[in-house]
Amino acid sequence: MASGKEIQSPPRIAVAGVSGYAGGELVRLLLGHPKLACIAPLLLGRAAGKESGDTTFLEDLHPQLSSGISGRQTEVHQFSWSRLTDAGVQMLFLATPHEQSREWVPEALARGIRVVDLSGAWRLKEASNRDVYQFHDVDAGRVSTLQEEAVYGCPELHRREIVNARLVANPGCYATSIILALAPLLRAGVVDVDAGIVCDSKSGVSGAGKATTAKTHFMYAADNLSAYSVFGHRHTGELLEQLDLSTEHIQFTPHLLPIPRGILSTIYLKLKHGSDVGALRQIVSKFYETSPMVRVSFDHQLPQIQYVVRTSYCDLGLVLAPDKRRVVMVSCLDNLLKGAAGQAVQNMNVMYGWKEEEGLL
Amino acid sequence: MASGKEIQSPPRIAVAGVSGYAGGELVRLLLGHPKLACIAPLLLGRAAGKESGDTTFLEDLHPQLSSGISGRQTEVHQFSWSRLTDAGVQMLFLATPHEQSREWVPEALARGIRVVDLSGAWRLKEASNRDVYQFHDVDAGRVSTLQEEAVYGCPELHRREIVNARLVANPGCYATSIILALAPLLRAGVVDVDAGIVCDSKSGVSGAGKATTAKTHFMYAADNLSAYSVFGHRHTGELLEQLDLSTEHIQFTPHLLPIPRGILSTIYLKLKHGSDVGALRQIVSKFYETSPMVRVSFDHQLPQIQYVVRTSYCDLGLVLAPDKRRVVMVSCLDNLLKGAAGQAVQNMNVMYGWKEEEGLL
Amino acid sequence: MASGKEIQSPPRIAVAGVSGYAGGELVRLLLGHPKLACIAPLLLGRAAGKESGDTTFLEDLHPQLSSGISGRQTEVHQFSWSRLTDAGVQMLFLATPHEQSREWVPEALARGIRVVDLSGAWRLKEASNRDVYQFHDVDAGRVSTLQEEAVYGCPELHRREIVNARLVANPGCYATSIILALAPLLRAGVVDVDAGIVCDSKSGVSGAGKATTAKTHFMYAADNLSAYSVFGHRHTGELLEQLDLSTEHIQFTPHLLPIPRGILSTIYLKLKHGSDVGALRQIVSKFYETSPMVRVSFDHQLPQIQYVVRTSYCDLGLVLAPDKRRVVMVSCLDNLLKGAAGQAVQNMNVMYGWKEEEGLL
Amino acid sequence: MASGKEIQSPPRIAVAGVSGYAGGELVRLLLGHPKLACIAPLLLGRAAGKESGDTTFLEDLHPQLSSGISGRQTEVHQFSWSRLTDAGVQMLFLATPHEQSREWVPEALARGIRVVDLSGAWRLKEASNRDVYQFHDVDAGRVSTLQEEAVYGCPELHRREIVNARLVANPGCYATSIILALAPLLRAGVVDVDAGIVCDSKSGVSGAGKATTAKTHFMYAADNLSAYSVFGHRHTGELLEQLDLSTEHIQFTPHLLPIPRGILSTIYLKLKHGSDVGALRQIVSKFYETSPMVRVSFDHQLPQIQYVVRTSYCDLGLVLAPDKRRVVMVSCLDNLLKGAAGQAVQNMNVMYGWKEEEGLL
Repeated sequence: MASGKEIQSPPRIAVAGVSGYAGGELVRLLLGHPKLACIAPLLLGRAAGKESGDTTFLEDLHPQLSSGISGRQTEVHQFSWSRLTDAGVQMLFLATPHEQSREWVPEALARGIRVVDLSGAWRLKEASNRDVYQFHDVDAGRVSTLQEEAVYGCPELHRREIVNARLVANPGCYATSIILALAPLLRAGVVDVDAGIVCDSKSGVSGAGKATTAKTHFMYAADNLSAYSVFGHRHTGELLEQLDLSTEHIQFTPHLLPIPRGILSTIYLKLKHGSDVGALRQIVSKFYETSPMVRVSFDHQLPQIQYVVRTSYCDLGLVLAPDKRRVVMVSCLDNLLKGAAGQAVQNMNVMYGWKEEEGLL
Repeated sequence: MASGKEIQSPPRIAVAGVSGYAGGELVRLLLGHPKLACIAPLLLGRAAGKESGDTTFLEDLHPQLSSGISGRQTEVHQFSWSRLTDAGVQMLFLATPHEQSREWVPEALARGIRVVDLSGAWRLKEASNRDVYQFHDVDAGRVSTLQEEAVYGCPELHRREIVNARLVANPGCYATSIILALAPLLRAGVVDVDAGIVCDSKSGVSGAGKATTAKTHFMYAADNLSAYSVFGHRHTGELLEQLDLSTEHIQFTPHLLPIPRGILSTIYLKLKHGSDVGALRQIVSKFYETSPMVRVSFDHQLPQIQYVVRTSYCDLGLVLAPDKRRVVMVSCLDNLLKGAAGQAVQNMNVMYGWKEEEGLL
Repeated sequence: MASGKEIQSPPRIAVAGVSGYAGGELVRLLLGHPKLACIAPLLLGRAAGKESGDTTFLEDLHPQLSSGISGRQTEVHQFSWSRLTDAGVQMLFLATPHEQSREWVPEALARGIRVVDLSGAWRLKEASNRDVYQFHDVDAGRVSTLQEEAVYGCPELHRREIVNARLVANPGCYATSIILALAPLLRAGVVDVDAGIVCDSKSGVSGAGKATTAKTHFMYAADNLSAYSVFGHRHTGELLEQLDLSTEHIQFTPHLLPIPRGILSTIYLKLKHGSDVGALRQIVSKFYETSPMVRVSFDHQLPQIQYVVRTSYCDLGLVLAPDKRRVVMVSCLDNLLKGAAGQAVQNMNVMYGWKEEEGLL
Repeated sequence: MASGKEIQSPPRIAVAGVSGYAGGELVRLLLGHPKLACIAPLLLGRAAGKESGDTTFLEDLHPQLSSGISGRQTEVHQFSWSRLTDAGVQMLFLATPHEQSREWVPEALARGIRVVDLSGAWRLKEASNRDVYQFHDVDAGRVSTLQEEAVYGCPELHRREIVNARLVANPGCYATSIILALAPLLRAGVVDVDAGIVCDSKSGVSGAGKATTAKTHFMYAADNLSAYSVFGHRHTGELLEQLDLSTEHIQFTPHLLPIPRGILSTIYLKLKHGSDVGALRQIVSKFYETSPMVRVSFDHQLPQIQYVVRTSYCDLGLVLAPDKRRVVMVSCLDNLLKGAAGQAVQNMNVMYGWKEEEGLL
């Protein structure tokens, strides 16, 4: 819990990459955040398809964010360092592609701006896990130092480091759903990791981003389900590092669901010794005792996507086999909120000593 | 604008019928309403499928409303007048079936409780328009007086009467979408009503309620579209009365869309004289100048369901034919919000002198 | 009914444009067509994203058409006139963009090949109606003659001309749904056309084609409904020409439904004189007496999209207002079948003297 | 391949339970089956909501099956043994609830009628596996004998026994998808069963049947995903018996997908020894060499629901981990076709010596 003196006055905030789904949700959350009531964030984005000189408005990018007051419009600016400086920006959210984040973060930190990066650019400590991203870093040394410094922005696991972090790497959506499910039992040492952990995850289409591709065409995604990136998804590295597992202990298969938003991960594991449901739930429950954004489902009902969509919660549930050894966990979240923008705001709340759930309920 | 002295301290509120979709949304809005921050509403509902003595919790009825604080649960009570009296309830929302509202409203008013009724029980002044509801009123005289007193809860049209109303009849969802579209041009006297107005409306499945019927089965509604109640839908009477039209002037066909929420009405009308788009938009825009919950789309883009869902806005747009006479209007809203719970809160805001959009943005 | 001598031996068939949705459905229908059992059609298409020299297979373009016999694959060839000649092609289906059809049709006819063109290239007789297509014809005179010769491929209206046609212009999907609904009452002379006819149509996303655009992105189309091309859709010209109406008599508004396939048109018209339902149904029913692909719904139930999807039927229903003058018609079809590939096969059946429903039930 | 003498003349067929989804699909397949062209099946079902004396028509139960010839209707009769006798029925499909099948099958066999039962009534040999069904058999001895005699109707595994079977127990939909995926590798002896097999299955809503329940309400199923019956689904017994596994070797978790039809099972297993993809595919491929209704995906593309829906195929694909030991298999089918009606027809084809794929392509 933050002590009184840690509570800080709100920083001047900028958001880069506001045109995407996560960027739009982030702006929505920030505009309604109680601590930021009087200070509109600086919005930055590329004005796709515009003549130079044209002004881009938030309301054109995300019409659902329009105000009822006709004519009231929020400008989206082209990104430039001088604009950030002029506006006195102290805190920058990056909802940009990972290449962009990789390039901008060192400069932002050098200018004394704290960053929450929603991309995959700074999440991974191990070079081998980063290979899939194929980063082309100009100043490898500087980047390497920052990579070490970056804090993995899962407040439930790294609350203390986030408080003073300059650079928070907001976790992947799939990774969040799996890490939050597994961390309590793994840390309690009750899981037989050698028996293998299977993570079967399903995500809505917004996880694939706004780009128009064959896979995001309505005719491909609707009434369909497909597995992809089997044994090769980028979020796997986050699982290994955050859960302290090696590749043979865990496997993860993502699937594309015919829905706009939401992730459900079904996780299969084996206990070292027979246990009972009460004891397991006690472990999970205790672990998240002071975590307002995790809801543990105690009895009858397993988490479902419908109950987390458009919230920033991660819901967890658990079933124990009659053999008292095999466990199925179900973890649900909204990939754009607890899996992206909501978690980013949660990280900001921690960074500035505010209540962790501020602006998220 | 409400003057200072009209601003009232928040009433003690009860909500009956919390188990339905509109009831659930209403509770969600009230729990987040800034004016009601410290006073939890009294929740009333039937505890379906429970043993007598069992307690029903809001979190079981609407798991998405669960708090992250484990064990925190909100009780839902059986309705009884003594419970309302004991709790000092001053304001009652009825999200109950119309027969129930028809029975409870006289008693509530007699006890000095103000009511916003979300059902169709008190919306219609003309007996002939009420026939479709087949009310069986016990005390016909008393009911008749109340029927006269009831204010049709469309704040954009009846703001002044709502301020002091004891009984507000919250409009039907389809009716709201059509009335808000047509009122400005009709009142401006530019519509050729004898040429006939066609209202082709499409609604998501939540409009059909929570009852499990053949029509709300996923296999019936999904990947489908169907017209129903052609020339015979209950909301027609609201259109006639609120727009001061007779039966031959307007026709309305509802359709069932394969989506959870949202209404889009496509409205066809003819002008008395050739006009231009600018003039028409000016009429509509001016009409809603002080109405924060109506968004008029000025140029390029017509309203779409995706931009109003989970908001309490009604979005309006308009296209004029090259002949300068025929007009197509498009009106969108979320049937559970501007079409039900959101409008009910808007009415409460007006009744208590608060900002009309309080708790709705 | 075709007399014995008209029944012809099956032609050698080619299909160009097999990669699209309509092209895929067309190939599926032809492969299962009883009259074509032993003669595989020649499949033509562009091999997008392939190295030159690579072979494209139907099974890669449309995996659902794969045979259970492993390794059995159907080659898709690059279009060339010599390939058509070598294969002795007598009948060509064009499921190509309209510019392509505009270019290829004269050449095909010159080579003695009969054509059913699924695009909008040859449907319209009036130059003014064709303006929206912006054709750039090289040989305007030759094209003009062919334009005159082209038969609008609605068998229910033009069966006799289709029998001997060299060039059949397969109707638009929206146009088919509206023309089949209106033709009987209009031809019977009972409609008050001066009162105006309103056609409110809703189509699934496959109608927008396979191109990946902002509008076909799952996140745009899902859980949404939007009107588009108000007073300006290309199919309007087909309505005017086929129903012999002028622009002030009829208006048509298309909407994008969040479903893969299917069109429902709700059509509003006024009768010249009061009538009764029985008489109107009799007119419609009689009109389609010998038309196997139109189903007229006689009583209780209006057509719905779910009952026509994946069939080549057009379903028609009708409701008369209590005033005996206003009529609502509902017309449903599958835009890829009766609205495209199914109707194309129906046209072929008529051209070769086979049963009209052959291969379509 | 069936030898000439085994080819039989078509039997007189009856279908009981035509009102459900599987029953409707079964009737559709039988009406289009080449071997049954001239002999309409006797349709039997309960006439829900009808006055006694009213006639029920197939076209009212399943409007999509209506013929274009107006007035042509297919009667659905009340079930009675005398009606079956009068019609000379030789072959009976039961698409009835399992209690009903449990009661009717002994009588049908006693009357010399061959049966394909689509319910779970006769699939399980082990009494312990049948416990979940809670059968109340009147004549336990007779039932026990029939239970032994019943052939599990998976033609890919039991083709020979099906040929002469009197009673074929059509497999469960989930069970089919998993058994067909696992049988080849398990029989080849390459799977390390002690390491455990995880089957994570997802099914469309039609799998839950036509009954209107809270779970089949559109608002529950749409935009959602939920796991259910974890460690306790009825189909588990079929997996154990058909794959010769015990309870600790395999676990199965079903999920409800927000789509009408289709199952995708993601299956995780470990090999005894390191292998390569080619060898594994060779095993699967060889196993299904003569099975026309199984499609093995050889290279790039894993099975997806969109490619099997409305076909009677089961599609199989496989990915091997870089460790050469862990395998993910993906299996897809349409739960109403290969998972029910299509497989029932396939069984009939085998029983009468016809081509296994007859009427299914």
